[in-house]
Amino acid sequence: MDYAICPKLENAMGVLGQRWTGLIIYQLMAGPKRFCHLESSMGVSGRVLSERLKTLEKEGIVKREVYPETPVRIEYMLTDKGRAMETFINELQKWAEAWSEVPQKV
Amino acid sequence: MDYAICPKLENAMGVLGQRWTGLIIYQLMAGPKRFCHLESSMGVSGRVLSERLKTLEKEGIVKREVYPETPVRIEYMLTDKGRAMETFINELQKWAEAWSEVPQKV
Repeated sequence: MDYAICPKLENAMGVLGQRWTGLIIYQLMAGPKRFCHLESSMGVSGRVLSERLKTLEKEGIVKREVYPETPVRIEYMLTDKGRAMETFINELQKWAEAWSEVPQKV
Repeated sequence: MDYAICPKLENAMGVLGQRWTGLIIYQLMAGPKRFCHLESSMGVSGRVLSERLKTLEKEGIVKREVYPETPVRIEYMLTDKGRAMETFINELQKWAEAWSEVPQKV
């Protein structure tokens, strides 16, 4: 196997392993969304959503587009890198559906 | 999309996002391994390796087999659930190779 790929894989999985990150990507696969739309449809706090979006922007998975309208419109969307995740997320989903248990919340 | 799958996906990605976990699974895809073999081939501390193997056992991804020989032989191997990860790990690897940067160690 190729050991050099491991830090990249671990980094990718570390990002995706954070709560809400996968769901944000899912939502954006359907098309660009505004902050308030994501916030209300996911039931996540604005503070956490903002943090996750920043991480995803830093990773080059999500981009933030500002439309200079009145009032200004800001949308979040997947980059090419983000859209390229669809295949493995679908495979991961199949695996999780077949094998995973929902963790108990303690 | 199916919201019910999200906790399962997040749980799976949370486990895989821990350092070394992916590499352990990779190593075991090639076949059962003894603790000392994993330890030396990965260059990971015994303490961390032991923690990760326990997490993977708890998740039902890895199992620990004790052979009552003299001296006793203990091997770690993938379960069916663990082997079923191969497809998405391959897809994730393709994505990471194409798109990810190795994170800077600060």
